[in-house]
This record gives sequence, structure tokens and C-alpha cells, in this order.
Amino acid sequence: MKLIHTISETRNQVLRARLRGWKIGLVPTMGALHDGHMSLVRRAKAECEFVVVSIFVNPTQFGPGEDFDKYPRTLVEDVEKCRISDVDVVFTPSASEMYPEGFNSWVEVKGYLTETLEGEFRPGHFRGVTTVCAKLFNIVQPTCAYFGQKDYQQLKVVQKMVNDLSMPLEIVPCEIVREPDGLAMSSRNSYLSPEERKAAVVLSRALSKARAAVTEGERNAAAVQEIAEGVIRLEPLASIDYVALRDAETLQPIDRIRKPAVLLLAVRIGKTRLIDNAFIPTN
Amino acid sequence: MKLIHTISETRNQVLRARLRGWKIGLVPTMGALHDGHMSLVRRAKAECEFVVVSIFVNPTQFGPGEDFDKYPRTLVEDVEKCRISDVDVVFTPSASEMYPEGFNSWVEVKGYLTETLEGEFRPGHFRGVTTVCAKLFNIVQPTCAYFGQKDYQQLKVVQKMVNDLSMPLEIVPCEIVREPDGLAMSSRNSYLSPEERKAAVVLSRALSKARAAVTEGERNAAAVQEIAEGVIRLEPLASIDYVALRDAETLQPIDRIRKPAVLLLAVRIGKTRLIDNAFIPTN
Repeated sequence: MKLIHTISETRNQVLRARLRGWKIGLVPTMGALHDGHMSLVRRAKAECEFVVVSIFVNPTQFGPGEDFDKYPRTLVEDVEKCRISDVDVVFTPSASEMYPEGFNSWVEVKGYLTETLEGEFRPGHFRGVTTVCAKLFNIVQPTCAYFGQKDYQQLKVVQKMVNDLSMPLEIVPCEIVREPDGLAMSSRNSYLSPEERKAAVVLSRALSKARAAVTEGERNAAAVQEIAEGVIRLEPLASIDYVALRDAETLQPIDRIRKPAVLLLAVRIGKTRLIDNAFIPTN
Repeated sequence: MKLIHTISETRNQVLRARLRGWKIGLVPTMGALHDGHMSLVRRAKAECEFVVVSIFVNPTQFGPGEDFDKYPRTLVEDVEKCRISDVDVVFTPSASEMYPEGFNSWVEVKGYLTETLEGEFRPGHFRGVTTVCAKLFNIVQPTCAYFGQKDYQQLKVVQKMVNDLSMPLEIVPCEIVREPDGLAMSSRNSYLSPEERKAAVVLSRALSKARAAVTEGERNAAAVQEIAEGVIRLEPLASIDYVALRDAETLQPIDRIRKPAVLLLAVRIGKTRLIDNAFIPTN
């Protein structure tokens, strides 16, 4: 496994794989790797002959007052996990390697998809995400890039960018990986105190209860949202940013569940902001 | 030579060339091909084993009230010129192939480089240019893309996009091709009446006179601009949008010529807006 800090050397390494006709998999991460990330790596290893994991805490996707400075950085452990998983290249650029002085080119998905939900609570976030993803795609030129569904809106935004701009790769969505009690794995879970960690289970519990109601026949979107909100409101440490049942493709609000939908949550547990979601099938 | 209207078939054709290890050249055009375009094609043919010419009058780079509707469209003649020049693929997508319903992803170079000169007179123009170029680069994945220096600011904007976003291709700038009397070749020259056509020579004449002054030792930017403006003001059919001596890399204004500079003109001849420029060496 090679640990690489520069764009040019990453290109060199990937080129050798490409000339052999190998499929190239990219797993873009911000590090602090957990089992959710490693499930993406396993999927990439299963499908591609050459796997690149990028580790880059991307400053342009954090807003002022967000957690860029305190975001967990565990590079030594991350590299070891990648080595054990037989990753071929770990690409860990510096901020100045990715954004040299004078950098001012941006890739942006406009419209409702990036204005709602996370876009509303984190202005500029998705512009940072799409720009860094576009740049990573250009550097690695992967056959496939692997994204977790926990960041469901991010996945939809990246898919739209790839489709609109005809980027030559496939985006592979991967299942959410959860702790035994249901909490979706996230690097930000490390912010939680023991008490908050227990409280954080309300997100997945709210999703489960709402899903169960749909399974039992509930089709009214407001009623389904209300069930999820009710669960979260019972937890004193939790405060809701949004609970939203949306069309699974467009993320537009819906009145009734007729097409595949997704229930999306953003909840603050103490000072830690967590997101989670569940797919809501139509039957 | 293949004439192709779809993104997927263009990809298929280029893939065959790529698998042979061939260099792939892209000449992006809006059609109405003249000897300037064909010089780009010749350069691409000399350097690459496989050459794609795209012909697409890109709606997103025209502003309201600009000449999108009347822009010359000469597809039959264009295709014949490409055939004679041994082009491998002519890619002529429809607007809906490039911008399907709901398209809303944009690539944009921000800052002074796109705000000044053409950016000031044509708001949104460069966002359309960079978005369509990014999309064409993703579709064709060329080794090299060939751009004429007549659109000098466009060249610098595209180069900045490619550098900032680490796009995996080389931008090849090509010399301006001129009519015998000095007028830079442009598809928009076809708008000119015979009288206007004669008047249009003031652009290249102004550049020549300004350049000659620099050769003779003039280093003051305002004085050099004044010489060019003086030539244009003598032509009653001409009206100046800008005459600007700028740093050749940043397009920032300069007081004195110390580094390579470029003199850029935008002049309306009757209702036709023409641009031209000349490189100003430091000695």
C-alpha cells in the first residue's frame, strides 16, 4: 500500500493500474475511518482491482462556526485500517495541495436539491462537497466511487453532478452501517458524551417507528413525520433541525407515499449535530 | 469519419481509440468553421491519432439579447470540412442532449478573471463556457484540447478551470488566424456588410500600431492603450467596448509593461461585436 500526499504521484500510481486495464475504485473520505467507511472499502475491493481511499478533511464544505477545527483526525489508525484492508493507495493531500493559492473554480449543483434540508442548515456545504468530489474524480479517474447512504442528500447531489456533467464514472451507493443499538456510524459520534451517546439512539428509533407505521399501512406523510418527531421529542438531550419525508429521487416534499420515499433526520444531541435517514418503500 | 449526435455513441467511439493507446484530440467549436478552426484541427491531427471536433452552439454562454438565434449554422459545410481534414468524429449534440430537462450543475471560475472585460460585458458568459467545456472534456476525455487565442480571456479561464480542478488533459493554445488584411477570423465576421467588413480592419490595425509603439520603447500602459484607441476612433462605424492592456496571465490592469502583457479589444462594428488581441512581449 502506498501513502501519497501529492496529486501528481497519485496520478502516476493510478495510471499504472489503468494501463493494465484494471477497474479503479475510489472511496472518498474525511478520515476518522469507522466500520461504515470500511464497508465501502470492502465493496470497492470486491468490485475493483485497484482501490484508492482519499482522506481529506475538506475545508470548503464546512461553514463558519462548524466543526472543521475539531473534526476528528486519526491518520495513523486510518492508514493502518487501509493497510489491513489491502487498499492500494491512500491519498492524503494537504489543503494547499488541493486548494493552492488563488484557487477559485467551483462545481455546483443549483436548485432545490441543494437548497433544502442540509443545504438550508449548512449554506455552501454542497458546493464544497461537489467541488472536492469533482477534483478527486479528475485526479483518480475512478471506474466507480463509493458513497455511504447515511449522507443521503450528498449522494443524490453527487449523482446529479455526475449525470448533468457526464462525468465518466459510476457512483455506487452503499448501505448505512449501524452500531448494535441502531446508531448510524459517523465520525462525529466521537463528540458524544456517554450520556449523549445513549440519547443518540433516538434517531434510529424514530426512523424504525415511522417505518413500522408505513408497513402497517400509514400513507400520510405528515402523520409519518409526526411519529418520528414524537419519538425524538421524548429525549430531553435532543433538538430537531428537521424531520422530513421526501421523494427519494428529488427530495421534494410529498403529501402521501405513492413513490419510493426517504425519511431524513437532522438532530442535535447536545452540541453534536447528527443525521440519519431511512428508505420508505411503497408497500 | 463518423457524425455522431449522442453522448453515449461518442463515448463508444473514443473508447475504441483509447484502448489502442492513442492520443485523443478535441477541438470544441460552435460550428461555422473557418480557417481559424481548421488550423486547430490540423494541429490536433498532427499531435493526436484520434481527433474529435464538437460542433455545438452552446445556449448557456449567450446572454439575453445576444446573437444565439442568428449565430451562423452551416453544419453541412462544417461536416464536409472535417471530412476533408480526416477528422475521426464530429460530435453535434442537440441542446437537449447536452442539457436535458432539470439540468442544473455548473462549473464556474470565480473572481477577477471572469468578472473583467468579456465577463463585464457578457454576464454569465464564462459560466456557460466552462460548464460546456467541462462536460465535453468528460464526454471525450481528450489528451489535449485545442483553443484559439482570439478568445484569449476564454483560454485563460478554461486553463484556470483545468488547473484548479485537476482536469486530466492539456489545453493547447493556438495562434490567431487572420484574413489577408489582418482581420482575425471569426464566425461573426459573416454578420458584417461589405462596408463594415472594410471598417473591421481597425481592430488589427490598432493592435499593430500599439505593438509597434512598444517595440520602439513605449512602456506606459495608458499610452499604449491610447494609441490603439486613437486608431479605432478614426473609424466612424466602430464603437469601443474596451481597449485594455493587461497582465498576460491574470488579466489584471498594469501601469507599465514589465512582464508579458496582452492588449485586448472589444469593438462593435455597426451591430456586430468583434474581439481581438495581441501579445505584447517585454522587449
